Amino acid sequence: MHDPNSTCGLLTLLTDFGTSDGYVAAMKGIAYGIADCIRIVDITHEVPDQDVFRAAVILKQVAHHFPPGTVHVVVVDPGVGTHRRPLAVEARGQYFVGPDNGVLALAAPAPRRAHVIENTDLMRSDRSDTFHGRDIFAPVGAHLARGVDVARVGPEVEDMLDLAMPRPVFHRDSIDAEVIYADKYGNLMLNIDEGDLEGIDPASMQTTISGFVIEQLRSTYAEVEIGELVVYLGSSGYLEVARREGDARHYLGAPRGTRVVIRHAPR
Amino acid sequence: MHDPNSTCGLLTLLTDFGTSDGYVAAMKGIAYGIADCIRIVDITHEVPDQDVFRAAVILKQVAHHFPPGTVHVVVVDPGVGTHRRPLAVEARGQYFVGPDNGVLALAAPAPRRAHVIENTDLMRSDRSDTFHGRDIFAPVGAHLARGVDVARVGPEVEDMLDLAMPRPVFHRDSIDAEVIYADKYGNLMLNIDEGDLEGIDPASMQTTISGFVIEQLRSTYAEVEIGELVVYLGSSGYLEVARREGDARHYLGAPRGTRVVIRHAPR
Amino acid sequence: MHDPNSTCGLLTLLTDFGTSDGYVAAMKGIAYGIADCIRIVDITHEVPDQDVFRAAVILKQVAHHFPPGTVHVVVVDPGVGTHRRPLAVEARGQYFVGPDNGVLALAAPAPRRAHVIENTDLMRSDRSDTFHGRDIFAPVGAHLARGVDVARVGPEVEDMLDLAMPRPVFHRDSIDAEVIYADKYGNLMLNIDEGDLEGIDPASMQTTISGFVIEQLRSTYAEVEIGELVVYLGSSGYLEVARREGDARHYLGAPRGTRVVIRHAPR
Repeated sequence: MHDPNSTCGLLTLLTDFGTSDGYVAAMKGIAYGIADCIRIVDITHEVPDQDVFRAAVILKQVAHHFPPGTVHVVVVDPGVGTHRRPLAVEARGQYFVGPDNGVLALAAPAPRRAHVIENTDLMRSDRSDTFHGRDIFAPVGAHLARGVDVARVGPEVEDMLDLAMPRPVFHRDSIDAEVIYADKYGNLMLNIDEGDLEGIDPASMQTTISGFVIEQLRSTYAEVEIGELVVYLGSSGYLEVARREGDARHYLGAPRGTRVVIRHAPR
Repeated sequence: MHDPNSTCGLLTLLTDFGTSDGYVAAMKGIAYGIADCIRIVDITHEVPDQDVFRAAVILKQVAHHFPPGTVHVVVVDPGVGTHRRPLAVEARGQYFVGPDNGVLALAAPAPRRAHVIENTDLMRSDRSDTFHGRDIFAPVGAHLARGVDVARVGPEVEDMLDLAMPRPVFHRDSIDAEVIYADKYGNLMLNIDEGDLEGIDPASMQTTISGFVIEQLRSTYAEVEIGELVVYLGSSGYLEVARREGDARHYLGAPRGTRVVIRHAPR
Repeated sequence: MHDPNSTCGLLTLLTDFGTSDGYVAAMKGIAYGIADCIRIVDITHEVPDQDVFRAAVILKQVAHHFPPGTVHVVVVDPGVGTHRRPLAVEARGQYFVGPDNGVLALAAPAPRRAHVIENTDLMRSDRSDTFHGRDIFAPVGAHLARGVDVARVGPEVEDMLDLAMPRPVFHRDSIDAEVIYADKYGNLMLNIDEGDLEGIDPASMQTTISGFVIEQLRSTYAEVEIGELVVYLGSSGYLEVARREGDARHYLGAPRGTRVVIRHAPR
C-alpha cells in the first residue's frame, strides 16, 4: 500500500486532445483526486489527430529522460469505444498506460510486462464510451503513481500490439533510410541511430534526400553556413537532416516517409 | 489559519490570455508567492477573446472532476477596469473566483455563497486597472487554496449575475435544441442532457441539423462508419453530434447557436 | 547541501521550442530526476524562433512576480553549438540560467553575479551539441532550485553580454519612443515607463503612431469607446497603446520598432 507520507510519483500525459477544450484538465482533476501528491507533466497534447506513430516516436524520445517509476499516460486512441484493449505496461523501470494500438510499443519494448486493465476499482465508476482518457487511463495512471502494483490492474498478456518502425536497408556502401519525424523547426529525423553508423567514416558520408546531396556527418548545425543543409546525430539519438536557421521539411518538401540514401566509405 | 505543514489545495486557471505572452506565468508567480504548497492546473488559456459563454461552458464541464476544495480562477473579463464586481463563490464544495459577468454561473449554480472581493489584504498592493487576473483574482485564489475562509474576501451578495443557457423547447414528439459548444475535433454539443431524453426510445430518435437527418441515439461514434454522422450522449453529459474521424462543425457548417430538431417516439 | 525534507524551489522555463514536440518535456524529466521536490512553471514556449529580444522582454515582465529564490531557465539560443558561454546569474534575489546572448540581461541587470557554467557534475553526462536546454541548462537550473550554491557552477565573469533596449529621446515638449513588444491582443508596449512621464500633465499628452493621434493618458482602456485607440500605463509598467476590444498592432500596422512621438505639456 501507498504510504501517504511518502512523496509519490510523476505522471506524464501525451494526447491528441489539444489544449483549447477542457479534456486534458478533466484528466488532471481526476488524477489529483486519486493521488493528491503526484506531479503531472504534459509531454504534448498537439499530436495530430489519431497519429499513433508520431505519438509513439515522441514518447520514445522523451520517456527515458524521466526518473524511474514515472507513469506515462498516452491517449491517442482512434479505437476508443471498440474492442481494443486498455493496457498498463511496466518496462525499463517505468509505467506506460494507454490503448493497445502500438502507441506504447517504441517506448516500452520487450522485456516488458503488459497487463490488460480490467479492475474497475481503479477506474471512474461512471464511465463513458468516448473518453477513456478521463475514465480509465488517467485514474489507472494516478493509482500506479501513488504506488499501486501494476499486477492489480488486470491479467498479464503476451500479445501486446507492436508498432512497425520502418527499418533501414544496409548495403555494402550505402544505407536506404527514411524520414520518421519532423519537428516544429522542420528538422528531419531519420530511422538511423548511432549504432547504425559504426565503422563508417563521417567525412565520407553523402546523404541524398529530395534530389539534394549533403556532404559529411557534422556534430552540429553550427558547422555549416546559415541556410545550408546539414546531417548530424541529433539530440534524440537519431540521424537528423536540418537547414541551419531554416526549415528542412519545407525546403526539401520532405514529409514523413521520404526516402533517404546515405552513401559512405569505411573509416 | 493555514498550517504550513499541511498539504494545501489545487488552484486551476481558465483565461483567454493565450500562452505566448507572460500573463499566465505572472499569475502563477504571484500565487506561488502566497501559497508555496499549492498545485496549479491550467484548464485552458485558449478561450476566444472575451467569450464569456464558452469559458462558462468549459468550466462547467471540467470543474466537477476536481477534488473538493479546489479553487477555480477564471479571467475572461471584458469589463476589467469598469464597475463589474470581482467575486469569490463557494458552491458544490469548491471555490470559484472571477468577474461577476456570468462566467462562473454555470459551474457554480445556486445554492451558492457569493462574496464580493473587497479585502485589499488579499490582493496585490500595487494594483493595475487592466490586469485583475494578476492583481486580484490569482492572489485571492491562492489565499483560498491555502485555507483562508471565503467570508474574509468581502460581503456576501445575493445578486450574482447568472448566464442564460439557452433552454430546449419540448414538444409532444420533438425537441427544439441548439448547438452550445464545438470542440477542437468539431464535435458539437447540444443543450440537451441525459435527463431530457428520459422516456424516449433511442432507436426512434431522428436528429435534423443543417438539413442532414441523423438516425438513432448511439452510445459511441464507433457504431457508425468512418465519415458518417452520429448522435450520442457525450462524455460531457450533453447530447453530441459528431462525424466519425471527421469534423462535424465544418461538414455541417454548424457554429454555436445552430438550431437542431430531434424527433422521437416514446420508449 | 540541500535538506531533502525542506520544500525546494520554483523552476521556470522560457523557450522557443513550442509544445508540439517533446523538447520541453525532456527538460522537465531531467529536472525532476535531479530535484524531486521542485515545482516547474512554464513562462512560455512560443517565443518566435531565436527572438532573443522578445524573450528578454517577457522574462523582465514576469520574473519579478515570482518569489525570491526562483530559478528561471531560458533557452532561446541561436548560438547553441558555438562558443557562446552558458551562464548562471544571481540578481535581485533570483537565479537566471541560459546562454550568454543577452536574453537574461533585462531581467537580471547589474548588480548581479554571473558565473560561466563549467562544472560538468551539474550537467547531463551524455551531452549533445544541439540541445543544451536538456543537457546543461535544465540540470543546472534544477541543482540551483534544490539549493546548490551558484558559485559551484563555475567562475564568476564580469563581461556578461548586455542587451540594447532602445532608449527614448527626450525633448523639451516631446518624447521620441518606439514599440518594443506586441502581445497576443495586439496591445503595443513602448519603451517608456512611469518614471519617464514624471512632471507631465496626463491630459496634455498627444501620442502619434502610424499617422494616428491619440489624446490623453488614460488609466484603463475602459475609458474610451469600443474600437477607439487609447494610451495608458500598462500592467507591465510600460506605456501601452491599445485599441479597445480590437488589435492595435494590426489596425495601425505597427510592429516592433515602430516610431512613436509623444507631445506633452508640464503638469
